[in-house]
This record gives sequence, structure tokens and C-alpha cells, in this order.
Amino acid sequence: MKIDINSDMGEGFGPYTLADDEALMAQISSANVACGYHAGDPVIMDRTVGLALDHGVDLGAHVSFPDRMGFGRRKMDIPLVELEAHVLYQIGALEAFTRRAGHRITHMNPHGALGNLASTDPAIAEAVVNATMSFDPDIAFLVLPSSALEVAAIARGGKVVRLFLADRGYMPNGQLAPRGEPGAVIKDEGEVVARVLGVLRDQKLTCVTGEEIAMPVQSVLVHSDTPGAVALAQRLRQEIIESGGEIIPLTAQLDTK
Amino acid sequence: MKIDINSDMGEGFGPYTLADDEALMAQISSANVACGYHAGDPVIMDRTVGLALDHGVDLGAHVSFPDRMGFGRRKMDIPLVELEAHVLYQIGALEAFTRRAGHRITHMNPHGALGNLASTDPAIAEAVVNATMSFDPDIAFLVLPSSALEVAAIARGGKVVRLFLADRGYMPNGQLAPRGEPGAVIKDEGEVVARVLGVLRDQKLTCVTGEEIAMPVQSVLVHSDTPGAVALAQRLRQEIIESGGEIIPLTAQLDTK
Amino acid sequence: MKIDINSDMGEGFGPYTLADDEALMAQISSANVACGYHAGDPVIMDRTVGLALDHGVDLGAHVSFPDRMGFGRRKMDIPLVELEAHVLYQIGALEAFTRRAGHRITHMNPHGALGNLASTDPAIAEAVVNATMSFDPDIAFLVLPSSALEVAAIARGGKVVRLFLADRGYMPNGQLAPRGEPGAVIKDEGEVVARVLGVLRDQKLTCVTGEEIAMPVQSVLVHSDTPGAVALAQRLRQEIIESGGEIIPLTAQLDTK
Amino acid sequence: MKIDINSDMGEGFGPYTLADDEALMAQISSANVACGYHAGDPVIMDRTVGLALDHGVDLGAHVSFPDRMGFGRRKMDIPLVELEAHVLYQIGALEAFTRRAGHRITHMNPHGALGNLASTDPAIAEAVVNATMSFDPDIAFLVLPSSALEVAAIARGGKVVRLFLADRGYMPNGQLAPRGEPGAVIKDEGEVVARVLGVLRDQKLTCVTGEEIAMPVQSVLVHSDTPGAVALAQRLRQEIIESGGEIIPLTAQLDTK
Repeated sequence: MKIDINSDMGEGFGPYTLADDEALMAQISSANVACGYHAGDPVIMDRTVGLALDHGVDLGAHVSFPDRMGFGRRKMDIPLVELEAHVLYQIGALEAFTRRAGHRITHMNPHGALGNLASTDPAIAEAVVNATMSFDPDIAFLVLPSSALEVAAIARGGKVVRLFLADRGYMPNGQLAPRGEPGAVIKDEGEVVARVLGVLRDQKLTCVTGEEIAMPVQSVLVHSDTPGAVALAQRLRQEIIESGGEIIPLTAQLDTK
Repeated sequence: MKIDINSDMGEGFGPYTLADDEALMAQISSANVACGYHAGDPVIMDRTVGLALDHGVDLGAHVSFPDRMGFGRRKMDIPLVELEAHVLYQIGALEAFTRRAGHRITHMNPHGALGNLASTDPAIAEAVVNATMSFDPDIAFLVLPSSALEVAAIARGGKVVRLFLADRGYMPNGQLAPRGEPGAVIKDEGEVVARVLGVLRDQKLTCVTGEEIAMPVQSVLVHSDTPGAVALAQRLRQEIIESGGEIIPLTAQLDTK
Repeated sequence: MKIDINSDMGEGFGPYTLADDEALMAQISSANVACGYHAGDPVIMDRTVGLALDHGVDLGAHVSFPDRMGFGRRKMDIPLVELEAHVLYQIGALEAFTRRAGHRITHMNPHGALGNLASTDPAIAEAVVNATMSFDPDIAFLVLPSSALEVAAIARGGKVVRLFLADRGYMPNGQLAPRGEPGAVIKDEGEVVARVLGVLRDQKLTCVTGEEIAMPVQSVLVHSDTPGAVALAQRLRQEIIESGGEIIPLTAQLDTK
Repeated sequence: MKIDINSDMGEGFGPYTLADDEALMAQISSANVACGYHAGDPVIMDRTVGLALDHGVDLGAHVSFPDRMGFGRRKMDIPLVELEAHVLYQIGALEAFTRRAGHRITHMNPHGALGNLASTDPAIAEAVVNATMSFDPDIAFLVLPSSALEVAAIARGGKVVRLFLADRGYMPNGQLAPRGEPGAVIKDEGEVVARVLGVLRDQKLTCVTGEEIAMPVQSVLVHSDTPGAVALAQRLRQEIIESGGEIIPLTAQLDTK
């Protein structure tokens, strides 16, 4: 009955802000920090790391393709050896701030188009895993269950933390139902919360076809850039605790395994 | 009679190249690596770190203002706390590549406009020193003798390596003669080499006014982006050795102190 | 009793938004459009130009130093000949969207650090004027009265429209009182509106020392990125009209001179 | 017996240079100018436009995906409406420099990954054509014969100039033989020149299978960034003239049709 609540943090840039990081950081237990590629800049990274430390929140590298204008959502054809270099650059840059703050990078997950590719393309997943583990083999991978990234991380002896997207429908094979299909996106806040509590209690989920599938998740994602993000996180936190659950950072999940 | 030869490396970007890094790396003992701000990118940084390792060359972070179009040569008004964040970001990013290669960042020196400011403005120098030493107090500062950067590094208990610009004239107070003044720039290769040998032998230099000044240098800079760079480095290396001198990396200089 | 209300528009970037351009565009008569340097990108410029055309709003180029992370607020040392090229690039880029929409660039004003320099430094002002008028001598300059930009534009035979900053105190010499001094910034919305109505009626303003000075303005700026921007613009518009005034685009101001 | 020689120009950036534009400009009759996306910057664009004007060389917009690090060679998934905005932005920016110089944009061709897509994907080709012709319907498209771009331009009533890649093998259907196949790339300078002369004389080319195909070209491309570019252009120019041919800018080709 222990779960991590994670959220993407530090996704502003220069004068711009996307989310209320300060309010959200008080509700979550792990932060995925933008590293200056799809979003974030050194000043924001520094502030986000400090904020996470203040709240005892785990710190992950949220790495991306080098595409600020497209917010990392556009697929780019980058050779694997170059992709590894881009992942390393971002992880190293974030490490500088965590180290100064007396913290460390606890986990990583790729963002946007890179995230989608790392979930489905074994070669991309392997490049992401290689870059990360060559830097620090203790960095955990925040993965969708059964994704290429999970497979690649485990194959290399890496740590994985399984992510549950509470507002997304799942297919019988454990994959996300494609957007646009019935039940693919759940918008009702109450239902989203109920799904988290159900999964937390039973480690099972009713998928879009009505079947029950195993869902042994360890972390649930709250989208930081949607209007009701803080309220949702707050409600989730409260109902988990009231149900006898506990919210613990992602690394604590690994320790209890 | 031991000296380090350093050069700025990895200053290409994407499809562009500025210097023949491969040839030059074989002649020098320390490399100052661009970190993606004034020049360099993750792919080039990765290659440069590998090249340095192959040649047993020390690896420094050559940090800059965030200004690729202006090659870091334009002064930017950046608040000190932001400047620290920019320095950290660059050092961390480079560290990722050195760590993967089994190397480490041995030293740092600021580039271009940031380098000029760090030599003359104590607050800027302190910000550079703070950022660097909060990351790793063992990183040495490659400094002009008597510069603000040297003062700030020593005040904080940091290591310094003194840099000799062999093609520049000096004033009686040990500062560089401003470009444009007589004797400020020495273009003759033979004279440049002779100056290095003289300084190496006597720890003294005849300055632009004809006076002799102390010049206790430990490292000499070869500009990588000038046409005859490789030939100059080669000749320098050979004549130093023929004079009974030894070329050793910058960190070895520190050990022999 | 005719006045233009202008505002900075299109200052988002990629996924980011700074202001409610759609609501504000309905209240103003001239828009200063970011050109992709301090803010804005081709997609946003296209949308902003369309929005302006829909509302019959004049379209100006809001040019800047090339500094997105610093939002164009950091002074950069750029040679004048290069600065001219940067101004031209931005004006040309904006012109492409106005031309496709059947509109044209009616005016220009420099943003942030470049705006401050163009107000005080005659050489910078001249570079901005030269670049603009070499592109199209009909583009009007939106200037602070008595600024270097006004002087340079008039000297070259250019059109000028005088800007009133209703929330800023003025000194007896017609210059802005420096921020931090008493009366330098007026925060009360009612007072800001009253000042506009007063200046509109009398062409005079009580400055920070209590003296009355001439204030023959033709355009008033509403900051787009402050919380109550739309409400203020709406109130200003209504009270001007109720006072018998008329809100007309900046170019119409020129025609009525 | 009239032909245009074109080359990609202005592909440096900040401190970087790719080609000897000054020497090459004296040999060619049309220049395709980088617009700050894959390469080039305002300062370089200004210089390149001036250089072209000095040599009576036609000026084209060489537009690209927004990808400086990848030199525009990486495919990016950009929605068509956004792609149009990017093309417009670049054309407008270049126009500013041509207008100031008393010149105009005579033609355009997309670079790298965008060029490949515009040759094969009708929707991309149409977006490029729409953006260009909404700006100026007189801008000619420099196209590969039978490419999607040629089809789209003609469908919209645009002008086209057919491009011959003298160092590439062709297939019986008039398309380029894929790199890697026998005869796909011709490296011998003499053979390249002979092919141009042959095509110029006969409007026919022997393709990789040995068949003769029609090759009614009007312009031949000299790669600016290969080592012997200037020598090749010079030899080509000389042999064309000695064979009784004439080198004329691309727009003159259109006039003589």
C-alpha cells in the first residue's frame, strides 16, 4: 500500500512558467526535472532542485530531444550514438545542481517524443539506458510496464520503477489504449483517483475491454501542466492516506521491494 | 623546467570545425573543452573527451556566457546567481562525458567575455569560483597571474595554475598590454617560442617597457584556431624538450609544487 | 482627443504563453509583435498577425537583442553594423506574415534592453532607424518623447508616434523618473486611467516634482503581461470614449496630424 | 546552350565558415542563401546578399527545418501549417537584406531533410509552395525534375527551374539513384564536367542502367562545402564557355523560355 506520486517539474523557460511547481512540490514525492532541452534552464533547474530538497522529494532527469520550440514533442531522427551524448549531457547538467544541493539524481525518464520512442523502440531504449547507466548505475528508470525501456533497463541490470498513468485507459496486453479510442483518456477527477486507489489496493486494473489485468505499479504520474493539477494531487494524497496507504519517494519504493 | 601546454579544444559546433583538434591533441598536455555555450555540442564534447583520454591530456571545462552566435565574446549582463547556475550547468554537462570515459574534470577556465570579466571583476570571479568549487573543490583554476580569478580562487582555498600567454606583451604590473599598443601582440613564431623558453628557464619576462618582471608560470596557451597552431605546438614541444624541459599536464604541475 | 492604445503582443514561445492576446487585442488599436528574438516564433507571429487583422489593429515590429532566455532584457555588446542586421532580420520576418495577411508593418519599437539603449544612446538609435528605414521609410517609430530614438528618427525624416507610459512618473525634463524613486511607478488603476484622460484633455502632465509639463502624446501603452491587463485596457477604452475621446490606430494618428 | 550554375552560399554561422563564398561567388550565377535555420545568421546573410549583388548573381532563399545543430539534415515532424510559418519567416528575413541592397529574392529551394521531403511528399511540397507564393508569386522554385516540389509549383502556377545534380547518377525514371548503389555518386571531376557539357548539348543523360533519358535542365548545382568546389566551378564555367555555352542567372533562364 505504498506508492510514489511523481510529476514533471521545472518546465518553464526564461520568463515563462507552465505549472505551479511550488504548490505541487508539496503534494508529490518525486520530481522529473527538465534539463534545458525541451524546457528548463540553469536558473530554473537550480530552483527546482532546491524546491525538491526542501520537500524531501526525489529528483529525476527528464531528458528530451533538443527541441525547445516543439517542447520535445517532435520526433527527430538522431543517430543512436548522438542520442546517447544528448542524454549524458542533460543528466550531467542536472547532476551539477543536485550535487551542490547535497542531493543526487535518483531516477530518470525520457520526455515527449523521446519518451514515446524509448517505450516502443528497443534501440532507442537501449541508447537511453546505456547513457544513463554509464553515468550512474544507481539511477532508476521510471517506466511504463512492458515498455521497451523497462526491458532494456532490466537487461542491463538497472533498477526500474513502474509508472501508472491514472488518466489513461489500458489494453489487455498492458499497453496504453491509443488516444482517440473509447476509454483511452479519463477526464473525471473522481474516477482518476478511484483508479489509483483500486490499483494500489488490488494491483489490478479493469482495462478498456472490461477485462482485469495485473497492474503492479509503484508510482503514479500527476500532469503538472493541467489546470487542476495541484487540487488533483492534493486529493490523491489525502485519499491514499485515508485509505491506509502511504506516499513515499520512488527510491523508497525500490528499497521496500 | 616543467611546463604544461594547453589549448582550447572542441570549439566546433554541429557541422562546423574551428581547429584540427586531432593533430593538436597530440602536442599538448591539457585541453580546455567548450561546453556547448560558446561552442561545442554533446557529440563534439564526447569526441573531445575521448581524444584527450587517448593522449593522456588533462581535461578542463571552458565555460562561457550563453552566446553561440557571438562565440561568447559579447559581454552579457547576467545576475551573479544566474551566472553561477550557468557555470554549474556547463561543468556538470562536461563531467558526464569525462565520467563515462573514466576521466575527470581536472581544471576550468572561463572563455571570452566571461574570461575577461573573471580576470578583472572580483564579483564575477567569485561567482565562477563558487560554482566550480561547490561542484568539485579539486578542480584547478587556470588563471592569469594577479587576475581577480586567481585572487578569488586562492581566497576560497582553491588550486590555481598560472597561465602564460606567450604571444602577448606584458606590462610592468604583470597585466597584459592592451591590444593595439606597441608590443602587445607578438606574431613571430620564433619569438613566441623564445619567450616560452626564457620564461621556463628564468621565471622572468622582459615586459613592453623593457623592464624584467617575475613570470612564475606553469602553463602556456597555444591558440587552437590560428592557422599555424599545430606547427607552433609541435615546435614548442620539441624545443622545450631539447632545452631539457618537460611537458606535463596541468595537474602534474600541481603535484610537483 | 484621439489616442492610440498599444500593447506588446505575441510574446509567447512554443508551448508558452505570457498574456491573453486574444482578449487584449479586442481592446487595443495597435500591437507591437515580438519577432522571434526575445519572444515569439513563426507560428505565434502568424497567429498574432491574423488576430490583429481581425480587430483592425495596427501591426508593429517589436525588435530585440537575440536573447530568448533573458527575454531581451540583458544588454548585449553588439557592433552597430551587426545590430542593423539583427533589426532587419526581424522586420523582414514579420513582414512576411503581414504581407500574406494583406496587412503591412505600420510601426516599430525596440524591446527591453535594446529599447532602453535606443532611448538613450544616439548611435544605437541611429542603427535602429537606419535598418528600419532602409526596409520601409513609412514605418513609424513608437518613441518616448525626447528620446534618442525620436531624435534619430526625425533627423532621418522618419515618422514618429509619441508614447505615454501612464503608469510611470515623469521628471520636469520629460524623462521617466527612475524606478525606485517616489512616484516613479503608479500602481493604482484608477490613477493610471485618470492620468491618461488628463493628458488626453490637456496635453499636460503633473510630474513627480509637482510641476506641470507638456505631454503631447499620441499613444498609450498597456502592459500585456500584468494580471489586470485586459480589465485595465477595457476600462481605459470605455472612459476615453465616455469622455468624448476616440481610440484610433497609431497610423490614423499620423494621418490626423 | 544556356545554363545557370548555382551553389549554396552563406552557410557559416557566427565564428564558423563552411565554404569560400567570396571565391565561389565569382564563378556561379545563382546563390541559394541560408536563412538562419540550418545555417547563416543576419550578419552572414547581409554579407552574402552584398556579395551576390557585386557579382550579378541571383539570390534564392535556401530554407530549412529549424535545426542548426543538425544542419537541417534531420527529419522533423512539423505540422504543415507550422511548416508554412517557418518557410515564410525565413523568406521574409532574407527579403529584408535583398530589399535594402536593391535586389530581390529570385528563387527558393528547400535544404537538407526538408528538401528531400519536398521532393517526395506532395503535402510538404504544397506547404512550401503555398508559403512562398503567398509571399511573392514571382519567386521561382529550383527543383529536381519530376519531384513533388516541381509538381506542386506548376499546379499552383509557379515558375520552376530544373536542377541537374552533375555528380549524381540517375535512374531510368529520372529520379536520383540512391546513394550506395553503383554509379550513384560520381567523384571524378572530369566526368562531372563532361556530364554537364553532355546534358547541355543534348538535353539527354545516360542513366545508371545505361539507358538514355531526357534531362532538360536549366541549372547545375556546385556543392560549396566540398574541398575542390572553387576549382570545379571555375573549370565548369570555362569549359561551358569554350563549348559555346553561356552561363546566365536562373531568372534569365526563365526569361529565355
